[in-house]
Amino acid sequence: MLEYPNSNLIVSWDLTLSCAAALLRCNRIMTKAVTQYLAQFGKFGAEGAKLGAGALGQKGEALCEMAKLGLAVPPGFVLTVETAKLIAGGQATFEIKQQIVLALERLAEETGCSLGDYKNLLLLAVRPSTPLALPGTLEAVLNLGLNDETVEGLAKFSGDPGFAHECYRRFIQNYAHVVMGDDPAAFEDLLSLFIEERGYVSATEIKGSDGRELTARFKSQLEAHDNQVFPQDVHEQLWHTIVALVRGWNGPRAKTHRKLHGANADAGLAIVVQAMVFGNQPELSGAGHAASRHPQTGELVMQGEYLADAQGPDLIARLRHSLPLRNGATSLETAIPAAFQELRAGLFKLEQLRRDAVEIDFTIAQGQLWFLDAKPARRTTAAAIKIVADMVRQNLMTEHEALLRIDPLSLDQLLHSTLAPDTKREVIAVGLPASPGAASGMIIFDADEARVLVGQGLHVILVRPETSPEDIKGVHVADGVLTTRGGMTSHAAVIARGMGKPCVAGASSLKIDTAEGTLKGPGLTLKKGDLITVDGSTGQVLKGEVAVVKPSLSGDFAMFLGWADKARRMNVRTNAETPHDAKIARDFGAEGIGLSRTEHMFFEGDRIIAMREMILADSERDRRAALAKILPVLRVDFEALFAIMAGFPVCIRLLDPPLHEFLPSASDDVVGIAKDLKIDPAALRRRVAELREQNPMLGHRGVRLLLSYPEITDMQARAIFEAAANVERQTGKAPIAEIMVPLVSSRAELDAVRKRIDMVAAEVRTETGQAINYLVGTMIELPRAALRAEDIAKAAEFFSFGTNDLTQTTFGISRDDSARFIGEYTARGIFPHDPFISLDVDGVGELINFAVERGRLGRAGIHLGICGEHGGDPDSIAFCEASGLDYVSCSPFRVPIARLAAAQATIKNSLKSKH
Amino acid sequence: MLEYPNSNLIVSWDLTLSCAAALLRCNRIMTKAVTQYLAQFGKFGAEGAKLGAGALGQKGEALCEMAKLGLAVPPGFVLTVETAKLIAGGQATFEIKQQIVLALERLAEETGCSLGDYKNLLLLAVRPSTPLALPGTLEAVLNLGLNDETVEGLAKFSGDPGFAHECYRRFIQNYAHVVMGDDPAAFEDLLSLFIEERGYVSATEIKGSDGRELTARFKSQLEAHDNQVFPQDVHEQLWHTIVALVRGWNGPRAKTHRKLHGANADAGLAIVVQAMVFGNQPELSGAGHAASRHPQTGELVMQGEYLADAQGPDLIARLRHSLPLRNGATSLETAIPAAFQELRAGLFKLEQLRRDAVEIDFTIAQGQLWFLDAKPARRTTAAAIKIVADMVRQNLMTEHEALLRIDPLSLDQLLHSTLAPDTKREVIAVGLPASPGAASGMIIFDADEARVLVGQGLHVILVRPETSPEDIKGVHVADGVLTTRGGMTSHAAVIARGMGKPCVAGASSLKIDTAEGTLKGPGLTLKKGDLITVDGSTGQVLKGEVAVVKPSLSGDFAMFLGWADKARRMNVRTNAETPHDAKIARDFGAEGIGLSRTEHMFFEGDRIIAMREMILADSERDRRAALAKILPVLRVDFEALFAIMAGFPVCIRLLDPPLHEFLPSASDDVVGIAKDLKIDPAALRRRVAELREQNPMLGHRGVRLLLSYPEITDMQARAIFEAAANVERQTGKAPIAEIMVPLVSSRAELDAVRKRIDMVAAEVRTETGQAINYLVGTMIELPRAALRAEDIAKAAEFFSFGTNDLTQTTFGISRDDSARFIGEYTARGIFPHDPFISLDVDGVGELINFAVERGRLGRAGIHLGICGEHGGDPDSIAFCEASGLDYVSCSPFRVPIARLAAAQATIKNSLKSKH
Repeated sequence: MLEYPNSNLIVSWDLTLSCAAALLRCNRIMTKAVTQYLAQFGKFGAEGAKLGAGALGQKGEALCEMAKLGLAVPPGFVLTVETAKLIAGGQATFEIKQQIVLALERLAEETGCSLGDYKNLLLLAVRPSTPLALPGTLEAVLNLGLNDETVEGLAKFSGDPGFAHECYRRFIQNYAHVVMGDDPAAFEDLLSLFIEERGYVSATEIKGSDGRELTARFKSQLEAHDNQVFPQDVHEQLWHTIVALVRGWNGPRAKTHRKLHGANADAGLAIVVQAMVFGNQPELSGAGHAASRHPQTGELVMQGEYLADAQGPDLIARLRHSLPLRNGATSLETAIPAAFQELRAGLFKLEQLRRDAVEIDFTIAQGQLWFLDAKPARRTTAAAIKIVADMVRQNLMTEHEALLRIDPLSLDQLLHSTLAPDTKREVIAVGLPASPGAASGMIIFDADEARVLVGQGLHVILVRPETSPEDIKGVHVADGVLTTRGGMTSHAAVIARGMGKPCVAGASSLKIDTAEGTLKGPGLTLKKGDLITVDGSTGQVLKGEVAVVKPSLSGDFAMFLGWADKARRMNVRTNAETPHDAKIARDFGAEGIGLSRTEHMFFEGDRIIAMREMILADSERDRRAALAKILPVLRVDFEALFAIMAGFPVCIRLLDPPLHEFLPSASDDVVGIAKDLKIDPAALRRRVAELREQNPMLGHRGVRLLLSYPEITDMQARAIFEAAANVERQTGKAPIAEIMVPLVSSRAELDAVRKRIDMVAAEVRTETGQAINYLVGTMIELPRAALRAEDIAKAAEFFSFGTNDLTQTTFGISRDDSARFIGEYTARGIFPHDPFISLDVDGVGELINFAVERGRLGRAGIHLGICGEHGGDPDSIAFCEASGLDYVSCSPFRVPIARLAAAQATIKNSLKSKH
Repeated sequence: MLEYPNSNLIVSWDLTLSCAAALLRCNRIMTKAVTQYLAQFGKFGAEGAKLGAGALGQKGEALCEMAKLGLAVPPGFVLTVETAKLIAGGQATFEIKQQIVLALERLAEETGCSLGDYKNLLLLAVRPSTPLALPGTLEAVLNLGLNDETVEGLAKFSGDPGFAHECYRRFIQNYAHVVMGDDPAAFEDLLSLFIEERGYVSATEIKGSDGRELTARFKSQLEAHDNQVFPQDVHEQLWHTIVALVRGWNGPRAKTHRKLHGANADAGLAIVVQAMVFGNQPELSGAGHAASRHPQTGELVMQGEYLADAQGPDLIARLRHSLPLRNGATSLETAIPAAFQELRAGLFKLEQLRRDAVEIDFTIAQGQLWFLDAKPARRTTAAAIKIVADMVRQNLMTEHEALLRIDPLSLDQLLHSTLAPDTKREVIAVGLPASPGAASGMIIFDADEARVLVGQGLHVILVRPETSPEDIKGVHVADGVLTTRGGMTSHAAVIARGMGKPCVAGASSLKIDTAEGTLKGPGLTLKKGDLITVDGSTGQVLKGEVAVVKPSLSGDFAMFLGWADKARRMNVRTNAETPHDAKIARDFGAEGIGLSRTEHMFFEGDRIIAMREMILADSERDRRAALAKILPVLRVDFEALFAIMAGFPVCIRLLDPPLHEFLPSASDDVVGIAKDLKIDPAALRRRVAELREQNPMLGHRGVRLLLSYPEITDMQARAIFEAAANVERQTGKAPIAEIMVPLVSSRAELDAVRKRIDMVAAEVRTETGQAINYLVGTMIELPRAALRAEDIAKAAEFFSFGTNDLTQTTFGISRDDSARFIGEYTARGIFPHDPFISLDVDGVGELINFAVERGRLGRAGIHLGICGEHGGDPDSIAFCEASGLDYVSCSPFRVPIARLAAAQATIKNSLKSKH
């Protein structure tokens, strides 16, 4: 075995080493004293199964795991991450080589074949194995062990010289690329040239007899380019390949590549060296992959495909149709029943072991099934939930484990309509997935027309180049929105997401011709009234009506959320001001309202006119008169919210934005609005100019406005209290009203507003004879409020963290203006993430923790929650749990996500505290 | 003595009390066991001298103090603040009355006169005495002790019935007003009626024989109005007066009045009861006041005036000319030499005792000098410094005590030109003191004309209704500014203050007629070219040229500031970007520059064109080309700053404001500017619109801009380093350059900018062969920067607290927009003060303390300073001292104030730590 056919070619492989290895082999000194540089696996099991993916890489771990389970794995060994590091540093080379030699010996024992053996030839596959899925992973080297001599042996004993030479040729090309860094295209060119020379049409015409000639040309190409001979020593081939993989992995280019893609530049690499098995043989051979479950539904039914006389890459290339695994005459089940049974049993064993659905690659070589790799199976969220639900039912895992297995954000898939899984789809364009959900309807180009048709009971998709504020009423009635221009933050996208309507934005291959009333795409013309379907979760636009599945919080999903509710400590509320949103949120399990922004109530219908009258009035009396017109409609709004949230708290924020937001902007129709208000346009313009601010975010708003115009507080408090009294009279149940004062920075501000609220409560109590059940609290949304929380808590029964504003002031970054640089900041790693999306734990988080701690000093048992948009972000929710908040509040469609995220946070915290 | 002439009138005065008092008197049981409700003073000295103004009020304290010193004080006693509280609460009435009776007995013993004694009549003055100067202090009641009987005794034994009845009449009016709350006008009307009846021309014709009749009418008026008889019992008169003063003081109206004027509503009141002395007698009698020193200069020369045959109020009314105390035949010194000597000696004794210049009121009654009150003398700041300097020279106080005696803000008086003290002034108008300092010059109505005339070496006062930006170049050359419209924050006022030019604003009695070329006032017309003088410290406008004294930091002032420099721990730097400002600040003792805002350097002359080219450029190359034009001029600016501040650090802040500040605003001449830039106006407008921000304060500025356009950092750093290298070559001394990065919220930002700065430094080092002496640090002006200070300090060699921005973000208040509500906030007490003027210690201060503590954890010995406008506010400086900052930096004219404030802070802190 240690007789090298071309011993004159030995360059780096050490003769002494071979002797040492022989000695070791003779004495069988595979003792603990020798550091274990590699983990061997094969029929006997596996040495390193316990080391895990951190040492073996994912592929290496899977192979060891399967070998240990007794599944048929082509035998081999894994050079660990630590070993690869040593190789990179040029350390312990002798000892590592020694172990490789020994490992190859054991491989020979198991297979009866040896590296370099003319007759019983062992060929090797050398593959990178990384601990995590990483970008730009290196290529594998296959068919290692072929040289000018062994290829002839393979030709002779396989009886297929064409096959042998093709293997050799491919190996040379592969080696040139991976080890020498040559361009594979040069070899492809050589091949094309040869085909041309021979007058062939395609590579399939290459004959066995051409093999030797082509291989020679490949070898010359390599040797000419690299100015060195192709190594005929097979051990040298192996070592060079290993070293090349290690060097390539640690090269500056690979590191930069990983860094650019957000991965760890210093990630480790293990290397799998494994006997080759050949599915590309005519008899009872082929390649395939299989999953233990259905990827859409999660049902325990094996899925997969199989391609006879093929290797793995052929399956991926899809040059021929693959066959199903089960059911039917042409299935694997029928073709090679033994292999099929072994495959099914192996998958089941693997799933039981991993307690998760798995997906494997396999090869069948002359009837023998080989397991090549195993990974967690791909799945939809519905499938993922079905899987963990099954595992819990089988007592394979606890509810808590099941909860931790699901990414909360993935639940979003289940909250919107989706296209029915097995329907035919005719995709006519793909735009941006701007607002999730799927809907079908008639193509309509005009918002007013949409309203009319919807009034007649029809379903409509509003199709516009882009939307403007005039289109809002159209979006409101449409089942979905399609725009041909604009991005994820375009008007249409933002509005549609706000309303929970499906929207595909920027489908730029489509052109609207409103004059003609057509929507044109490449080779396609649709007319107004034609049916289309938009899938806002994928960005697809489909012709005709496609069956849509409505979201349902039932079955396994409901059970799963029930476990989350049992597990979580924090309550989950919603941010909602309209009955429509409140209803959705309640159906999604919201336990009350955490933020009802009353300013939105001032815009609807005629209220805006009264609001403008208020702003333009010169005296408190006139302002009160204008506000009195708004009061009854506001009361109705509050009654609706109280009714929907019966039994749960409803937290209402008093007017927050600066007054100029209610007046027309420069681009609006000032003259028309002035006419409505029966005032001089000049007077209106003057007031608009008066109220203009340099930095409205830091301006005359929130509590500052409430202190300047106490009549606003009075009116809002009265509307709330009267609504509460009415609902209590009607239902016999007193609503729980929380009144929240925004933008407080000192206790005196809150004291002053609180005094008025209490006064109005007393008035309403006297008028109605009903005691009013209410709390007064404040937003903590300014750094000073967080710092002064102890003092402020003396006047506040609750705090709600307004983390949007708190982030703005803590960083000094206006969210409206941050687009210019925040992308660059996160791309360059200056900020680890956008602090408006996931809470900045180090800065804003510290302020929140101050406020929690100090707030409790000021008032034991003060109620604490978060109502910024972070309330729906799982990482931020984990922070809230750690900070001991009582609840999180988020937008309606985030409620189920928050329920799960809150449960995970509680579970992880309790695990942490156990350790 | 206890025989009451009209015992049937006794209402509230208890007979038993009199008996008890008699008993006490007999046994002389004036023991410690009896609570001391009052402090008696007289020839024997004083009982309560140690109690201080807190218990006795200022007047009471002064009287006791003088009595104890042996000065002649009309004897009497002080009811303490505590006693007055008891009286207000109706407590211990019996005991208090008891002590009053005893005190009156002792008074009788000393004076030989008794209350109610027909022959040896004692009359009393009852005066309020408050611990602090307070608004709306109550009136005194004089001549108490007169009734229908005693007035006759007084008439008989004084030999002047007219005098006696006038005293009685005035007492009735006085009593009616203070005790009964009647309107004094009713009595004035009665008097006028009487004069008319008698056919007199004025009150001086009233004869002694009319006295009784008039008194009777006054009494009837009182009794008719109040429906009760005027008390004839003199003890009752006294008690009722005391109770009325106490009640008046504690009434809701008085409390509200004090609150409205910013005083403590619950301030205490003591009451002085004292024998009357009469200066209104023909022989060797009169009233006057005197100060131990000259109020303007502080020289130890007695100042004051004297009016013969007069009482204090007559002196104030100035019906006759008063006489000087010293020098000349008509002076007090000549007229009553003994009294004069006693006065001088007394003043000197008082000054020595108080270790402060004093001012007293005195009366001379038939040759006998009486000291009536003593207060700290009024003084200019120059006088104040002369006084403490004298005291230190005489070893009466330490330097530290002297430093604590002067209000830092008062130093401002010494930093500007002032009108020479003893020159004649013809004031033609008074406007607002908009910018301190005095200057004379020709009246000029036009900015361009002003420039021409100043070019000819003339002095000019720019006179405008109000100024606009076009007038700035006129303000720049003028010696002073006068406007007839506008307030303290008008354009003219702000600009003039910024340039340190005297300005009187809003002198509305003056009218400008530019067509005529006249400035008219009531009965006055001045023409263009006429000389006027403006005093921006007082708001006076004077005709003609008035001698002006230039500020000088010499003599006692220099010595005084020298003590401050010895005493203080913190350094004082200045905020300056122009050589002009830097020079002023250096002369005022600035120890370097704490903030040089480089953006100002981009506006001057042609630089703004290059800056705009930079902003409009599409590529980094074009931006670098535009910046290259600015570099040489910037370098010259830095060279000038380094030269002026030789030996001291110069801290330069890299570009901070958002780019749109350098582009024209909507109202500017976009077409003209586009022409200058050789670009399409539409392109300019587009870029302006692109750069517009919702909240520029929280926008794309500071380090965010420097990261987007690293070429700006490169250019600025190069200009700084090249300037430093040049100055070192020229002077042989390396400047100390500190480069400051604004608006940092995380360390990564600073790291990135720092890297470029270090790179440029290395380049310049290579090019010049000179090592560059520089530090890199950051502003701490965002809450997050304060919280993350430990981490940031690892990349920063210094921190400078930008408290303007830090206040904005901590409170979430834009300084530009706060005017709408901050006034109301401070008026209502919601904020104790405007946090932009005096640092918010509770909120912003806590963040600063975090940053100090954490910054030192990150880098031991990190250099710490403040450069917000709070750096010139004494209260804020005290905070900086307590926080352990290394320096404060303020505007040039605040530097001496900061030097003193810093010294006071160090001294007070060390006193505190001793206790």
